[in-house]
Amino acid sequence: MAVTANSSQEALCIAADWGTSNVLFWLLGTGGNPLSEVRSDLGLSRMTDRKFAVVLEETAGELNAPAGLPVVICGMAGSRQGWVEAPYVETPASLDAVLLNAVKVPGQQRDVRILPGIAQKSEAAPDVMRGEETQLLGLPAFSGSRTVCMPGTHCKWVKLDGRTVTGFTTFLTGELYHLFATASLLRHSVDAAARMPPDDADFLETCSQLIKQPELLPARLFGIRAAGLLHGLSPSRASAVLSGLLIGAEIGAARKTHSERGVTLVGAGRLGGLYETALKMAGCQVEPVDAEEIVRNGLYDAASAFWAKTERRSL
Amino acid sequence: MAVTANSSQEALCIAADWGTSNVLFWLLGTGGNPLSEVRSDLGLSRMTDRKFAVVLEETAGELNAPAGLPVVICGMAGSRQGWVEAPYVETPASLDAVLLNAVKVPGQQRDVRILPGIAQKSEAAPDVMRGEETQLLGLPAFSGSRTVCMPGTHCKWVKLDGRTVTGFTTFLTGELYHLFATASLLRHSVDAAARMPPDDADFLETCSQLIKQPELLPARLFGIRAAGLLHGLSPSRASAVLSGLLIGAEIGAARKTHSERGVTLVGAGRLGGLYETALKMAGCQVEPVDAEEIVRNGLYDAASAFWAKTERRSL
Repeated sequence: MAVTANSSQEALCIAADWGTSNVLFWLLGTGGNPLSEVRSDLGLSRMTDRKFAVVLEETAGELNAPAGLPVVICGMAGSRQGWVEAPYVETPASLDAVLLNAVKVPGQQRDVRILPGIAQKSEAAPDVMRGEETQLLGLPAFSGSRTVCMPGTHCKWVKLDGRTVTGFTTFLTGELYHLFATASLLRHSVDAAARMPPDDADFLETCSQLIKQPELLPARLFGIRAAGLLHGLSPSRASAVLSGLLIGAEIGAARKTHSERGVTLVGAGRLGGLYETALKMAGCQVEPVDAEEIVRNGLYDAASAFWAKTERRSL
Repeated sequence: MAVTANSSQEALCIAADWGTSNVLFWLLGTGGNPLSEVRSDLGLSRMTDRKFAVVLEETAGELNAPAGLPVVICGMAGSRQGWVEAPYVETPASLDAVLLNAVKVPGQQRDVRILPGIAQKSEAAPDVMRGEETQLLGLPAFSGSRTVCMPGTHCKWVKLDGRTVTGFTTFLTGELYHLFATASLLRHSVDAAARMPPDDADFLETCSQLIKQPELLPARLFGIRAAGLLHGLSPSRASAVLSGLLIGAEIGAARKTHSERGVTLVGAGRLGGLYETALKMAGCQVEPVDAEEIVRNGLYDAASAFWAKTERRSL
């Protein structure tokens, strides 16, 4: 469903964050503001017949996008299983190199470009991202180096030096929560849908311990089940303990390689709140930014580089 | 199916290690040797209608057990969801207290006794075991204190002071391997059924690093997927890396609280070999014992205490 803002501003492009499960489409104005948006569940995992072009044209209609308006896309649509592969840029990766390595989808009436992800090819710590590089592109301008924490199903910790990604680490924290709460022995003990606030006492206590001793994670999981049997720990409290274990272990481990005090936290809502509380417990100065806003800004930045008639700041 | 040994020795009891998935039944002679055995998949998870008595009588027939011969059982049959609950003995738990707290199943023609598990009720590290206490009972006699490592789906690390369990920790290592290899993002990258030998180079390298830095576990899981994409890591090599991560993280964390050099390793076969190699890398002196032999010895020890006509050493 399209949400249309009242604006007479000229449209610059269609922008899409095409992930594994969901897609966010915007019609972006020449100033970067969203003129309309569509949220879809036609992520990569439902694109079995590679009907990207069909979905895109249908959505362009919903967005009231002019015919022939160009399109910029980030995320899993550029993976090997996606629409057209946009091969990874390697670390150390300048964010300008991400723009320069965008891949044009052949045979389309519109000018459709897909942004590449970033790969860290080191033998010791191989890693990849797709979509997060565009969020990084959309961060407010800054100088010097910083750590960016990007919570989610697969949480990324990124080291940025100016506009260059020097290294990053992916933690499966969100996926592990789901797996443990729904498919492991703990499924009988944990209410997977519980939604504790960031000041929940069980979350705080567990998280604070794991930040100090992240190696305890595999030793503490079974304790959730045992606490249910022995102390009557409720499924909603068990959920808070599980979140505390996973987020604490992630931050405790990440802080060993990302030791800067200042951390830009990409996220919003309840999960963002949990991470903000936990990062502060770990002694970080947290600068929260909104994930959706920065990915849209990053897509706009790319579109401006490709198609704007005026000079841009970055390239 | 019963395997019957050629022995004219008199039968002392039927002994059963009744777990969640499988059951091992033995007809034990007065000297402790197995006169016959039956392996069954009628574990607790298939006992929905609580037909324990029926399964036991059918198996007694297969074992050629005399009518009225008594029965000693350990494991999940004594859990709240089992045949009759045998409430946990609390740590510090003397193994003699395990025998003294066996529960007699009411209303049976045979004298059927179920051994209790052990609970560690501490708020900080609640934990439970059922079945392992009987393996501990069957360890060769020793004096002083020792660490016992019991690999499996839910691996236990136990501190024994003489015949007293002073504390223990459960690691979900076996279950995590299965979950990650079959239900997580890594399922596309890992051959869950791969069976590398203990001297596999990927296993050794990963395990050795995690023993030193166990906090890296959540930071290294996604790297298995990335190494497949970037370096063509094969699914069988990925399985060795996953095993190395999990066993290394377990041993690295366990060694912080179980720091004794000597470790009794309860296990056999390939998994036992992986743990033996890993424990030696961690600087442990490993004394391997056979899991099945010691649980049978433990059940015999219990049966002797209950029903033997001669004096026993332990009680």
